[in-house]
Amino acid sequence: MSTYPKHYCGIFGVYGSPEAAKHTFYGLFALQHRGQESAGIVCTDGMTLFEHKGMGLVPNVFAGSILLKLKGTSAIGHDRYSTTGDSELRNAQPLSIVCKRGSIALAHNGNLTNTNRLRTELQANGAIFLTTTDSETMLHLLARSDKPLEEAILEMMKKVEGAYSLVIMTTDSLIAVRDPNGFRPLSIGKLGDTWVVASETCALDAINARFERDVEPGEIVTIDANGLRSLKAEIGVDTKPSFCVFEYVYFARPDSNLMGTNVYSARIAMGKKLAEEYPIEADIVVPIPDSGNCAALGYSEAREIPIVMAFTRNHYVGRSFIGSRQEERDRTVNIKLNLIPELVRGKRVVIVDDSIVRGTTSTARVRRIRGAGAKEVHMLVSCPPHKHSCFYGIDFPDPTKLIANRRSCEEIRQDLGLDSLGYLSERGLVEAVGSHDLCLACFNGEYPVKPE
Amino acid sequence: MSTYPKHYCGIFGVYGSPEAAKHTFYGLFALQHRGQESAGIVCTDGMTLFEHKGMGLVPNVFAGSILLKLKGTSAIGHDRYSTTGDSELRNAQPLSIVCKRGSIALAHNGNLTNTNRLRTELQANGAIFLTTTDSETMLHLLARSDKPLEEAILEMMKKVEGAYSLVIMTTDSLIAVRDPNGFRPLSIGKLGDTWVVASETCALDAINARFERDVEPGEIVTIDANGLRSLKAEIGVDTKPSFCVFEYVYFARPDSNLMGTNVYSARIAMGKKLAEEYPIEADIVVPIPDSGNCAALGYSEAREIPIVMAFTRNHYVGRSFIGSRQEERDRTVNIKLNLIPELVRGKRVVIVDDSIVRGTTSTARVRRIRGAGAKEVHMLVSCPPHKHSCFYGIDFPDPTKLIANRRSCEEIRQDLGLDSLGYLSERGLVEAVGSHDLCLACFNGEYPVKPE
Amino acid sequence: MSTYPKHYCGIFGVYGSPEAAKHTFYGLFALQHRGQESAGIVCTDGMTLFEHKGMGLVPNVFAGSILLKLKGTSAIGHDRYSTTGDSELRNAQPLSIVCKRGSIALAHNGNLTNTNRLRTELQANGAIFLTTTDSETMLHLLARSDKPLEEAILEMMKKVEGAYSLVIMTTDSLIAVRDPNGFRPLSIGKLGDTWVVASETCALDAINARFERDVEPGEIVTIDANGLRSLKAEIGVDTKPSFCVFEYVYFARPDSNLMGTNVYSARIAMGKKLAEEYPIEADIVVPIPDSGNCAALGYSEAREIPIVMAFTRNHYVGRSFIGSRQEERDRTVNIKLNLIPELVRGKRVVIVDDSIVRGTTSTARVRRIRGAGAKEVHMLVSCPPHKHSCFYGIDFPDPTKLIANRRSCEEIRQDLGLDSLGYLSERGLVEAVGSHDLCLACFNGEYPVKPE
Amino acid sequence: MSTYPKHYCGIFGVYGSPEAAKHTFYGLFALQHRGQESAGIVCTDGMTLFEHKGMGLVPNVFAGSILLKLKGTSAIGHDRYSTTGDSELRNAQPLSIVCKRGSIALAHNGNLTNTNRLRTELQANGAIFLTTTDSETMLHLLARSDKPLEEAILEMMKKVEGAYSLVIMTTDSLIAVRDPNGFRPLSIGKLGDTWVVASETCALDAINARFERDVEPGEIVTIDANGLRSLKAEIGVDTKPSFCVFEYVYFARPDSNLMGTNVYSARIAMGKKLAEEYPIEADIVVPIPDSGNCAALGYSEAREIPIVMAFTRNHYVGRSFIGSRQEERDRTVNIKLNLIPELVRGKRVVIVDDSIVRGTTSTARVRRIRGAGAKEVHMLVSCPPHKHSCFYGIDFPDPTKLIANRRSCEEIRQDLGLDSLGYLSERGLVEAVGSHDLCLACFNGEYPVKPE
Repeated sequence: MSTYPKHYCGIFGVYGSPEAAKHTFYGLFALQHRGQESAGIVCTDGMTLFEHKGMGLVPNVFAGSILLKLKGTSAIGHDRYSTTGDSELRNAQPLSIVCKRGSIALAHNGNLTNTNRLRTELQANGAIFLTTTDSETMLHLLARSDKPLEEAILEMMKKVEGAYSLVIMTTDSLIAVRDPNGFRPLSIGKLGDTWVVASETCALDAINARFERDVEPGEIVTIDANGLRSLKAEIGVDTKPSFCVFEYVYFARPDSNLMGTNVYSARIAMGKKLAEEYPIEADIVVPIPDSGNCAALGYSEAREIPIVMAFTRNHYVGRSFIGSRQEERDRTVNIKLNLIPELVRGKRVVIVDDSIVRGTTSTARVRRIRGAGAKEVHMLVSCPPHKHSCFYGIDFPDPTKLIANRRSCEEIRQDLGLDSLGYLSERGLVEAVGSHDLCLACFNGEYPVKPE
Repeated sequence: MSTYPKHYCGIFGVYGSPEAAKHTFYGLFALQHRGQESAGIVCTDGMTLFEHKGMGLVPNVFAGSILLKLKGTSAIGHDRYSTTGDSELRNAQPLSIVCKRGSIALAHNGNLTNTNRLRTELQANGAIFLTTTDSETMLHLLARSDKPLEEAILEMMKKVEGAYSLVIMTTDSLIAVRDPNGFRPLSIGKLGDTWVVASETCALDAINARFERDVEPGEIVTIDANGLRSLKAEIGVDTKPSFCVFEYVYFARPDSNLMGTNVYSARIAMGKKLAEEYPIEADIVVPIPDSGNCAALGYSEAREIPIVMAFTRNHYVGRSFIGSRQEERDRTVNIKLNLIPELVRGKRVVIVDDSIVRGTTSTARVRRIRGAGAKEVHMLVSCPPHKHSCFYGIDFPDPTKLIANRRSCEEIRQDLGLDSLGYLSERGLVEAVGSHDLCLACFNGEYPVKPE
Repeated sequence: MSTYPKHYCGIFGVYGSPEAAKHTFYGLFALQHRGQESAGIVCTDGMTLFEHKGMGLVPNVFAGSILLKLKGTSAIGHDRYSTTGDSELRNAQPLSIVCKRGSIALAHNGNLTNTNRLRTELQANGAIFLTTTDSETMLHLLARSDKPLEEAILEMMKKVEGAYSLVIMTTDSLIAVRDPNGFRPLSIGKLGDTWVVASETCALDAINARFERDVEPGEIVTIDANGLRSLKAEIGVDTKPSFCVFEYVYFARPDSNLMGTNVYSARIAMGKKLAEEYPIEADIVVPIPDSGNCAALGYSEAREIPIVMAFTRNHYVGRSFIGSRQEERDRTVNIKLNLIPELVRGKRVVIVDDSIVRGTTSTARVRRIRGAGAKEVHMLVSCPPHKHSCFYGIDFPDPTKLIANRRSCEEIRQDLGLDSLGYLSERGLVEAVGSHDLCLACFNGEYPVKPE
Repeated sequence: MSTYPKHYCGIFGVYGSPEAAKHTFYGLFALQHRGQESAGIVCTDGMTLFEHKGMGLVPNVFAGSILLKLKGTSAIGHDRYSTTGDSELRNAQPLSIVCKRGSIALAHNGNLTNTNRLRTELQANGAIFLTTTDSETMLHLLARSDKPLEEAILEMMKKVEGAYSLVIMTTDSLIAVRDPNGFRPLSIGKLGDTWVVASETCALDAINARFERDVEPGEIVTIDANGLRSLKAEIGVDTKPSFCVFEYVYFARPDSNLMGTNVYSARIAMGKKLAEEYPIEADIVVPIPDSGNCAALGYSEAREIPIVMAFTRNHYVGRSFIGSRQEERDRTVNIKLNLIPELVRGKRVVIVDDSIVRGTTSTARVRRIRGAGAKEVHMLVSCPPHKHSCFYGIDFPDPTKLIANRRSCEEIRQDLGLDSLGYLSERGLVEAVGSHDLCLACFNGEYPVKPE
């Protein structure tokens, strides 16, 4: 397994617009939920690459008149969320380099599983690394090939393993790439004659671009003066599309469509599946906001039990708050969500959430609801128990810290002090999403790509 | 009418805790929705007043080790939202002064209606003003009186008119004051032996303090070494409690209790009243998030029409985003809320929102829903039409810019392109809140205190 | 004695120029040596006062496009150096207020000696203080008078005691004031039709203004649409001009003229007087840069002994360096000035400096010169021993920390490890400056104005 | 000629001290005159490399508690001054990489002359470049070699051409390298058991380290657990030491010793040589501070003409001032140096400066002296006319902008409006410095290493 940082990330690209940097700004802002640590834009006027990167949220990184200096008609951008201590500016993306091909910039969402081996091989062949990003590894591979760029990308795809959705920019082209498994999303849109590529369709909406189609797993889409053309990487016989189901469950925005399925609707369907699997007799359905809202609505509607927003979220809780006062974590649970006790008093309550990771936060919340006088407390989770690591870009903690890795469902129910606990079944989840091309490794340990 | 800035604000005070500044930090953070422009804390060790104020959100203003320098066992704090250009640091609160009484600090929520006259009188008597805050005016009045502080406050209350909830701190006492009409909220809580005062009860919850009671309209509550004592201002014969109903409709947090009524429950009740008044035949209820959520839930439950969260809010839209790109306002409407078109296609839709101010934003949203193929679009508003200015601290635009001031309900319906439009009746609103001690001036123009 | 902070400061004013703020910027920059802690400009377009103040050096406080926002044809500015912990932004000057006279701004150089009493009296009469500056005290006095502004200033001058050079600005006038003793400098210049007032003439040079004359001790110079007019305060019978001699010795810039005498020339003359009083047989004259340079040149020329710049100053040592690493003071002595040992080896050395305050730094330097192999080390100081506090705006430490307050000249010589030590005599200093209208209180304890 | 940025720079290294980072901080601060744009320190605890780099002056980049986080017993540091627009943080040094050798950090002073060719070759072999620094080029060469590090450095030295003084750090060694010509200085010192390497000896003094010796041209000095060892690169038959004479004339600090010669003394000697070559009959010698001070002292002493500091320098003029107000350049000349006119009135004046580059500034100054009523104005320059570019790290403008490249000495005299103009002869300069191992290419065009 890679020791290099995992990324949640959002990527965005524009080709052929006098407002390329501004579109990218709005695109990155719509994808802000995918990464809040650093943001960057690289753009080109056909001659030179201009870049600006910084730590923080998109509106802060591009405050003032910075966008005006990012000239040109093509641009790529990146929202980064790093999960290790390596949250330095030098790891901010997109990464732009000069090599024998000229200038290239690359932005990456996902996580390679063979980075250690690739870096060792590259180093053995004289490579130096200034960052700890997978992007630098991929740029080395592209720079070393003597083939035209698209063929070099095909070659690179034979070497790198794991999850990668990419936007690559040269002075005269924009290229979108997705790994053969298609772990992470990547969509193409159009705004007049301008081509747009984005991690999620909500970023196309943000600039009023029309959704065209997804980049296919294993596909290389090149956009240049000749328009758009596509190349498909040869995929090993046992490679099958395996899109990250957790994008549906938690990570993506509800207004995005992934593989043609709207995320909000999928979450409603998860709630309805929960209603089929766990037809609890209860008085109210209480979602954990905001991640449990949709599944709770689906459950509420299917079961005809009223939904009650008994937890109020403080919308100002963000990275800066939590980050700056690590020692205050416990208090933060309370400050992030406040319970309105009179809403649950004397009630049979069904809590709906998207996941239970360590179990500590959930335990505290169940205790508060009991303390407020609820008669019964049930909990439903809109996916199966998380038992395994993700090697493809979602930052779950070490499996030993995942409560479901150590404890049975019944044990967790007791730990949390619940009257009943129900996880959505794997089959229920797959049916709610409506596709079988899914990666479910974090639930069942069946890894589409073996991590090293 | 005052030409000085109106404030939405949050205030907080602590007496008798070694963690006074830290409690105030968490209290201000829970009240962040009441003011995001600047924040400040003044505290005392019984000898000296220490202060820190800055522009921005609470966690940013008090980043690093600043809290450690704010020593002492009493503290008051303030979240400020200014609605004029006068958003300078020098107007940040609490304001602390030295006068013949020694050091005094004051934090204010509300808006005086006779500031111009008071400042003119004070200036005629030699006063100088370094800020444009109402607080400085009140401090002048306190400093000029020869009476003990509580009597001086009583005197001041005879002179100032309008809305004011105050926390005042000296080196040995904490005083909470509310104007005779009780326009703005102010509650008292206790945490062990520590007394706490806060604009809303959600801030008491944030530090696990127990709610004790509200400060009454016209009451002066003094907390010092002798415990808590109360004084009541003589109230003019025609002064009756008139709490700002818009705190229930929009401004306060749902998990706060105002005058004993939970805000979330009041909003649910508004939705149910709407259901009585406007029993529309529809397929789905779509709230405008987040302000329309609760009333929509109430309407949905009463009418047994499913609620659909067809609008997704970008949670990263904040002051900095809007502020830095004023020219992009139109685009921002779209970026703040994105519609999921498939959820409304072919549907009879009831939109629920808390208010229509200028009408421009609502018009754009109705158009998007129609554009997505909705069969019918109805809109319900959880309060009566806003026709009049607020002089007591809510920042509505100039009445001439309020659409309901110029246009009838039917005209607005046509302007917005709706199939039907319904505002909650004044009676319905009052019943939903469950109290008659309300200020409804922005709806009916009956001002409890005449503005100058 | 006042417990409020003492100021070194620089003040500047412009009347009647479309570039008023820009001129003030350059003027303040030329006066930066008088105060590096904060800077501010207030200007007016005849209607409104605009202001900008900030912590730090002039170019940093007015970075970016801030000057463009400071509109109008009159402006006043202030460089501040505070010597207490009270170095907060709220004490930055100029201070601008609103009172019955309308808007007034004031910038002050000097230190009042009866502030405590005045503040107590004002507080007794209802005044509140938001800052700890003398300026606020003076503004209170002006605001309370019913007389026209110039007469109010005359009244104020009867009440305040101590040192004050002032620039006062209203929407339609600029007023320059100097206390009856004329402790601090203030000069008038002209640039075309534009009137300029500045602490030192070097600031007139900075904007190519022509020196007109000094503001006289006790004079009020008013500049408005009618041109310039003067008023003279009645001066008590025993009040005589007493200009701070330390401005000549150390504080003012060498290219400024004070009372018609160029500072550089005065310092050269001090060195020549030292040569008369102490005709030491030596091989080289070594100044302590930069403050000892001029007197050393005078001594070198008179004695025909070559000057050797054996100490190299690190020009990047500034407030931020020292401020941020208080614990490293000792090391800093070494880092600020580095000795070139070969230049003093085997030599009879005369060190020339402007003063010995605590004696610790000088001791370290003498030791380094001895360590480098000097044959003899003599030290000459270009003024008499500092034995007493300054109450008029120069920040000497507590008298008990002044080495000359506790030790005789011979004892200091021994403490410092010198072969000989000579201080310039009071008579020598007065002759070098060429005026008898001097304050020498820090040497002889004869205070022109009794401190309270 | 290289199109990559030229550097003035300062470098520093420490091996074997628990205070490695702190020593480096003080060393970089003493070398601040060599680069004010960015600063950086990389240190190691024997396992990991830690780094911090930032834009700005040393005390600002390492403000607060940053030094505490830079753990370990070895460190290298860098002060950077870039002369192109490429002043980005990503080009800040030291540069630290991971390669097959493990982690390496490198800091560089000087300028390679064959970077373009090397980068092209490296790119052809698959290298990618994330910065535009020469350092990255050198690190590529080291990373690609299979030899032990010192031999790899020898190999690298055969490939790179131009000027380079380097400090290289691995987890267990510190290596100091100087190019075969020894263009830029590099000295070794010792503080107890701690080895120190620094661009100039003044940085050794700053931490009280004892000067040991210079790194020789073409020498590789390795310091590790076995102590210090040296390796000498084979030098081409026609390579001879050619130390940059401009370090003596202008760039180095006067308290540094270069090749055993003190810079201050060399400058005094230049002034004395000027006195031999140009025995002008004059009344006063006026240096242009600070760069002309030493030569003026030498001239004054030799000619027995008094030195007069008629120009006062504003010590607060720094990069930020000039940088932020580019449009104000003309005004800045005046603001940086102010003339005291009475000191030159009626006098025959000899101005002494270290160089005339474009001629515009000098012309303005001569005009001011004439305008003040000087009887005669002569100018002496302490080196020959600058006619040629420097390819080794000094940033002269394009030769076409060098006045001496286009105009004869007599023409320049007329352009500047001087009575006479004298440049120190090449022989005079060489004799003043006392060495023939000098690069004089900017005067005579004889380039020790041919630029590409």
